[in-house]
Amino acid sequence: MPKIDISAVPLRTGSSYPTPHDAPMAGRSSKWLAKAAGLTQFGANLVMLAPGGISSQRHWHEKEDELMIMVSGELVLVEDDGETVMRPGDCAAWKAGVANGHHLVNRTEAEGSFLVVGTDFEDEVCWYSDIDMVVRGDTFTHTDGTPFEEGT
Amino acid sequence: MPKIDISAVPLRTGSSYPTPHDAPMAGRSSKWLAKAAGLTQFGANLVMLAPGGISSQRHWHEKEDELMIMVSGELVLVEDDGETVMRPGDCAAWKAGVANGHHLVNRTEAEGSFLVVGTDFEDEVCWYSDIDMVVRGDTFTHTDGTPFEEGT
Repeated sequence: MPKIDISAVPLRTGSSYPTPHDAPMAGRSSKWLAKAAGLTQFGANLVMLAPGGISSQRHWHEKEDELMIMVSGELVLVEDDGETVMRPGDCAAWKAGVANGHHLVNRTEAEGSFLVVGTDFEDEVCWYSDIDMVVRGDTFTHTDGTPFEEGT
Repeated sequence: MPKIDISAVPLRTGSSYPTPHDAPMAGRSSKWLAKAAGLTQFGANLVMLAPGGISSQRHWHEKEDELMIMVSGELVLVEDDGETVMRPGDCAAWKAGVANGHHLVNRTEAEGSFLVVGTDFEDEVCWYSDIDMVVRGDTFTHTDGTPFEEGT
């Protein structure tokens, strides 16, 4: 049946960011629902943030549209121009190419979760607003193009 | 701010199906959230079903992936192989080209709602499982290609 058995979808915790930018991601877990269902045209990830967790380093995408809907708990959406409290049913969207970095943070004592949908382009470029990092495709570098070195 | 002001997004009620297939759609309303936010790479519609309402005529897409998450209430997902009750947080996905028609129906006395995400191809072909109808692009015909006539 097309209803997704969410309990059977693998739970992924943390991120692929280079050290030290991966450390703040320990409180984020996600389930890649669209991929689990065999979809290929967009991603749809259920993201769970533990207390203190963040959804990502604050970022914006050059090519990929994103949209999210809150599922449970209360999270704070942080962007260049301020903060917005997000509660179940609330939605936000980020049009590709708009250079306003965003992420969600959990400042409560309970888990918060949301579903985020986005396209996935192999030649995507994603910029990080608060740290010296950019990712082109799957390759993270400093913004001047120099590589991250293991453990630095 | 990228948080979507859902109250300001136009409410669309009914459907563009030809008569008489539009009549069962009177209980469906939707808000096109992704379009309201300026996104172009996928659609994301918040769909509200009144008691007795249905989300669409039962259908499947040749080219477009779809995924939904329940937001409120209780709806029944109807497909070729049976029925599944859907409650808030439940998700379902339909991979393009799988010829298993689906829709959601509201058999309760309260509104039910969900967010549905899908790609939007101009040359899409969508087949209807229970009625003699197909849509190619924006053009509805009978499955033998003959047009619907006004008021028939």
